[in-house]
Amino acid sequence: MTANSERPTANGKVFLVGAGPGDPNLLTLRAAELIASADVVATDALVAPEIIARIPKSAEVIYVGKRSGAHSVSQDQTNRLLIEKAKQGKRVVRLKGGDPFVFGRGGEEAEELAAASIEFEIVPGISSAIAGPAYAGIPVTHRAHATSVTLVTGHECDETTGIDWQALAHLSGTIVFLMGVANLPMIVRKLREHGAPASRPIALIS
Amino acid sequence: MTANSERPTANGKVFLVGAGPGDPNLLTLRAAELIASADVVATDALVAPEIIARIPKSAEVIYVGKRSGAHSVSQDQTNRLLIEKAKQGKRVVRLKGGDPFVFGRGGEEAEELAAASIEFEIVPGISSAIAGPAYAGIPVTHRAHATSVTLVTGHECDETTGIDWQALAHLSGTIVFLMGVANLPMIVRKLREHGAPASRPIALIS
Repeated sequence: MTANSERPTANGKVFLVGAGPGDPNLLTLRAAELIASADVVATDALVAPEIIARIPKSAEVIYVGKRSGAHSVSQDQTNRLLIEKAKQGKRVVRLKGGDPFVFGRGGEEAEELAAASIEFEIVPGISSAIAGPAYAGIPVTHRAHATSVTLVTGHECDETTGIDWQALAHLSGTIVFLMGVANLPMIVRKLREHGAPASRPIALIS
Repeated sequence: MTANSERPTANGKVFLVGAGPGDPNLLTLRAAELIASADVVATDALVAPEIIARIPKSAEVIYVGKRSGAHSVSQDQTNRLLIEKAKQGKRVVRLKGGDPFVFGRGGEEAEELAAASIEFEIVPGISSAIAGPAYAGIPVTHRAHATSVTLVTGHECDETTGIDWQALAHLSGTIVFLMGVANLPMIVRKLREHGAPASRPIALIS
């Protein structure tokens, strides 16, 4: 084989992996197995240190995490990184807090990978949207109290994102706003303005 | 010690454990550890055989599963069983498909255990409400398409359960009806009657 060989390079594969809600014991068996066999791990800043410690020394670890107000790596850069490493034939684990498809941008990364003809696999993780309330003793559904649960991204609850406050205010089930602390006054005001009763119980979990 | 000793019996503990959506590799590390150390496992009928195979031979396995139309064990019986086994000092794992608090009756079992002063712990699992669509290639949220996701129990979608069809029909995000196949015609009719557009995309995952 020469450097100029026409043979196509064998691509690697990207695994979009949910790392769970923070408790390292809530990692899945599949996620643990993939982390242990990764060539490259691209991880969010919020993934637990005990999970990071599972990455083999031989693997390249890249922090692509976003923190509120301090986007270290743009989504475009992350997408390009995953594609580039896979094209080098690497086994790439994209490790995300919670679940990749629950406000995890996994859908966007999957679209980019598909467009670049990179093989990928989704590995669901436990979302803090459900585990957070559970650890606080709150079932998100309960036959006697809540027959549905709605998950909403709380840090994008501004006036422009098209949240249907009218519908939300009238839903009888549980509503979980993720990352909603900064917007809490607005969330409460909007729900009240659209008819949610003042007696509606709320919990703040942080 | 005699049989009539006044010393209170040391109670065991009950673990309400989510077994995940069916793929045995989506079991959590914590669930695997608890199953391996259980004295008693009370399990739903839907838990994967590969997960049942992890139960040690020394453990007592009790099927308390419900299947649509064939309730083998009532919820009251299950509650009593968990309390009784814990009072015998046993380490009891209550294994549920998906997540114990997402339409899993975990809230009711937790209430009964608390009322009986039995120690318990909730171990979240991955809900098929999110993993099912993911395995079908559908992110339940996506910045460009769905800023919320609502999980509704589909097999209780009759006229009496107080589902707010008006609010659901106007929600702009994803709605997942669990176990909704039998009620599918009614679900679609109700959403349409309350104003959901005929152009709204739907997926049936079974």
